[in-house]
Amino acid sequence: MHKVIFDTDPGVDDAMALLFLARHPEIQLLGVTTVFGNAAIEVTTRNALFLREAFGFDAPVAQGAGRCFDPNRGTGHFPHMIHGANGLGDIQLPEPAHRRPLDHDDAAGFIIDTVRANPGEVSIIAVGRMTNLALALRRDPGIAGLVKDVTLMGGAFFVPGNVTPAAEANIHGDPEAADLVLTAPWKVYVVGLDVTGQTQMSRPELAALAPKSQALTLLDALSQRYIDFYDALIPDAMLVHDTCACVHLVRPDLFTRTEGAMRVVCEGIATGQTILKPQGRPFPPGDWDGLPVQAAVTGVQSAAVMALVAETLAL
Amino acid sequence: MHKVIFDTDPGVDDAMALLFLARHPEIQLLGVTTVFGNAAIEVTTRNALFLREAFGFDAPVAQGAGRCFDPNRGTGHFPHMIHGANGLGDIQLPEPAHRRPLDHDDAAGFIIDTVRANPGEVSIIAVGRMTNLALALRRDPGIAGLVKDVTLMGGAFFVPGNVTPAAEANIHGDPEAADLVLTAPWKVYVVGLDVTGQTQMSRPELAALAPKSQALTLLDALSQRYIDFYDALIPDAMLVHDTCACVHLVRPDLFTRTEGAMRVVCEGIATGQTILKPQGRPFPPGDWDGLPVQAAVTGVQSAAVMALVAETLAL
Ligand SMILES: [Ca+2]
Ligand SMILES: [Ca+2]
Repeated sequence: MHKVIFDTDPGVDDAMALLFLARHPEIQLLGVTTVFGNAAIEVTTRNALFLREAFGFDAPVAQGAGRCFDPNRGTGHFPHMIHGANGLGDIQLPEPAHRRPLDHDDAAGFIIDTVRANPGEVSIIAVGRMTNLALALRRDPGIAGLVKDVTLMGGAFFVPGNVTPAAEANIHGDPEAADLVLTAPWKVYVVGLDVTGQTQMSRPELAALAPKSQALTLLDALSQRYIDFYDALIPDAMLVHDTCACVHLVRPDLFTRTEGAMRVVCEGIATGQTILKPQGRPFPPGDWDGLPVQAAVTGVQSAAVMALVAETLAL
Repeated sequence: MHKVIFDTDPGVDDAMALLFLARHPEIQLLGVTTVFGNAAIEVTTRNALFLREAFGFDAPVAQGAGRCFDPNRGTGHFPHMIHGANGLGDIQLPEPAHRRPLDHDDAAGFIIDTVRANPGEVSIIAVGRMTNLALALRRDPGIAGLVKDVTLMGGAFFVPGNVTPAAEANIHGDPEAADLVLTAPWKVYVVGLDVTGQTQMSRPELAALAPKSQALTLLDALSQRYIDFYDALIPDAMLVHDTCACVHLVRPDLFTRTEGAMRVVCEGIATGQTILKPQGRPFPPGDWDGLPVQAAVTGVQSAAVMALVAETLAL
């Protein structure tokens, strides 16, 4: 079993990832921590609570950061045209009278406590901005040595970004946090656009899953606006960003990786870009020296990944 | 015939490129302009004059910039461990009593005058820092519309850099100049590490060429230290950076290109990185908007390119 803390900003592709984690038989979800990004923190937290109820899982939900790690950096615009103003494709969300409330209001504290209660056993999967992880590291640097591994959806190493030609949205949204997370002494697998740009679910594939459960009917409905948005890039399909990171945790054999020290650009036109110094390549002394070797996930067996996603969502 | 101004910082791979241009039957060399980079400007200019004599061509040599376009940026360290302290592999260079002297001491002025004398006909191939081109553009922006095309050796789009994980040396050495050159309204083909990292000449291949002429005997000798340096990356071979740009001018069919607006990062850890906004890819409004569409050369038929290089050098 993989003991997982899932840090997320639901978010349409976050919703699919959450259902994947909730259904996968080898995942034990220790908690869901929310972060701003696809929408404001109040919205992403409300969505996490709604999805817990809709998908039928029990893990605690802890609310996290609503602003960037560096207080001088603004939150930026939330991508309503992608995830909807409500973060879930602008479908009508029921507001039940007795929804189970938020369990914690301090995601960084929840991460620290959970890691310290399960030393060496916790895998963190982070698919929003890296703010909560950076806050936890700053408050308790010792957790780096106690986490089993960290898997991020974020970055773009050898392909263009998505929010700028240089940068992917999760990293661009809080680059100082990402730079701290990528340079901390824990093992990080970075699942970025190099591979998530190759994992697609088409509208007909999602429609075929929809009748199999209420959760999938909901997932299909809330994903329609997101698929509409992606029409500019790929016809009638969505990129499966966040779920791809979850698949890497359970089936790393379906991916290839490029190892090396990583940095995140925090100023200028390349802000938010992830830059890898490939391990073993000689360079003059520079800004990547002495940093932990992380793993950029740069290759993917897309068909096998998408088959596993469809199969798991339908469990 | 291609009428060519060759802007260069000889430099070992510059020497091969210069011999390629001197020998290629479809190249008319209008002039050689020198720039600092692989060594100080006095050294690269002396080397251009020496190579003109050794290779037996007639084009005028104009000395160019010895410092960066932005006077606040330092020259950086010259890569003696790659090109030798004398820029030509530290072989003994004869100092003849009657070497033909320098023709011009103002490369930017020479570029402007030559372009204006041959409107629409001049191809510029620039294989050093972009300082001379930027100075010419600043002094006479009208030349942009009068140059046929510009081909650069520089940059790294979808592969790591060489002088830092983000940046290639020619661009890194004068990023403000490169940013001006790439965003000017002329057509630029950027031949960077994406393709030059795939064009190699082995020590035995060069040794086999050496007996064919005095020029090739010299080229073989001056390249040995450079090949030694590259042993850390590729065994017993050199990357053919600068000649690759020259081949693109005469045989663009041996390459593939990715079109888009380009910028160069001028601050922070990514300084000198070339970033392409792929044409037709949607992004929020940003720093690449409204700029000319240039061509990043991103694919190469390496074997065919190297066969043409060997054949041309032996003419
Ligand atoms: Ca997300
Ligand atoms: Ca050069």
